[in-house]
Amino acid sequence: MKKLFLLLCVCAAVTGVASAPADGLPPQAKRGGMPLLEALSRRRTIREFRPDALTDRQLNELLWAACGVNRPDGKRTIPTAMNRQDLSVIVLLPAGAYWYDAPAAKLVLHKAGDFRPQASRFDAPVKLLFVSDTEKLKPTPDGRDFAAVHAGAAAQNAALYCASEGLANVWVGGFDPAALSQALELPAKWKIQLTMAVGLPAK
Amino acid sequence: MKKLFLLLCVCAAVTGVASAPADGLPPQAKRGGMPLLEALSRRRTIREFRPDALTDRQLNELLWAACGVNRPDGKRTIPTAMNRQDLSVIVLLPAGAYWYDAPAAKLVLHKAGDFRPQASRFDAPVKLLFVSDTEKLKPTPDGRDFAAVHAGAAAQNAALYCASEGLANVWVGGFDPAALSQALELPAKWKIQLTMAVGLPAK
Repeated sequence: MKKLFLLLCVCAAVTGVASAPADGLPPQAKRGGMPLLEALSRRRTIREFRPDALTDRQLNELLWAACGVNRPDGKRTIPTAMNRQDLSVIVLLPAGAYWYDAPAAKLVLHKAGDFRPQASRFDAPVKLLFVSDTEKLKPTPDGRDFAAVHAGAAAQNAALYCASEGLANVWVGGFDPAALSQALELPAKWKIQLTMAVGLPAK
Repeated sequence: MKKLFLLLCVCAAVTGVASAPADGLPPQAKRGGMPLLEALSRRRTIREFRPDALTDRQLNELLWAACGVNRPDGKRTIPTAMNRQDLSVIVLLPAGAYWYDAPAAKLVLHKAGDFRPQASRFDAPVKLLFVSDTEKLKPTPDGRDFAAVHAGAAAQNAALYCASEGLANVWVGGFDPAALSQALELPAKWKIQLTMAVGLPAK
């Protein structure tokens, strides 16, 4: 719980900026990181992790990158069809599963317990679940699934953040969505699109 | 054709780098752009465009960002499930529809003609089609569509490049995939996941 408390403090400090700085970006924006094309160049899958936790800043920025609010009107780092904002992220840490509350930039406990092993076989300090609210958006009649598109966009943002920050990450589709949903007691409307393991690279 | 020729020359120049520079990145890498978190902060949808074409460098970098090769082993800026590399990009320019040949970093003419109006109602100099080879990857039996996830990842890369470069972009799902496939004489295995209009912002 100490870690979560620290994280919330960091979030509050970051979101508490009162006025836009000289570069014209709103208070919801963040700065820093590697030049974009270099982050794209370094984007790759790394499957072996050190056990060390991410710092509070890294976890905060990782989640904000994925689907955080980047403007005063509440819009996000990813676009969504008809602005449905159907995509959310659940964070699996050793102590529990947490919702990323993007407007508040905070973690909200969903269920205590370590659910990381059920998200993938990789031994990583953090796992992310990219989940879609199927009541907000459904596939088109001709079978195009924009909810899955949104999950990919958010996961790519997180992967680029990892590249920029020197973190390892691997996307995993080979989990049992029904078993993971059941373990988490996730309401039926949430579809787990994919999971991602994140941590410091082993080498 | 002059524009295409120029583009090919630019591509050849970029891919012709013989040895890795001091930062350890391979010759397939690119450098530059805005700090990642600032690009994420500036990511937004802009629906009104100036008629000006992108520069050859911009079009080259936009396509490389989307799904270009970033390493000697041919892997890409986006991950794909089981490394199937099912995602491709078709570029619609005034003169025709072109495949982005990622390994060669070149445009290859698919069909002459201006197909941009059929991709979306937005009047933009460039439109991208994110297309999936359905013979390489199919949705899972429980209905998760990783091909759509890959399209979202590539589109997000392109959107971040736009943010970094000061370009406008809008993602469009509201097109007629059957009519667009027919107009382009696209083989049946290709599924058009979404389209993106790109150009300089009108304002």
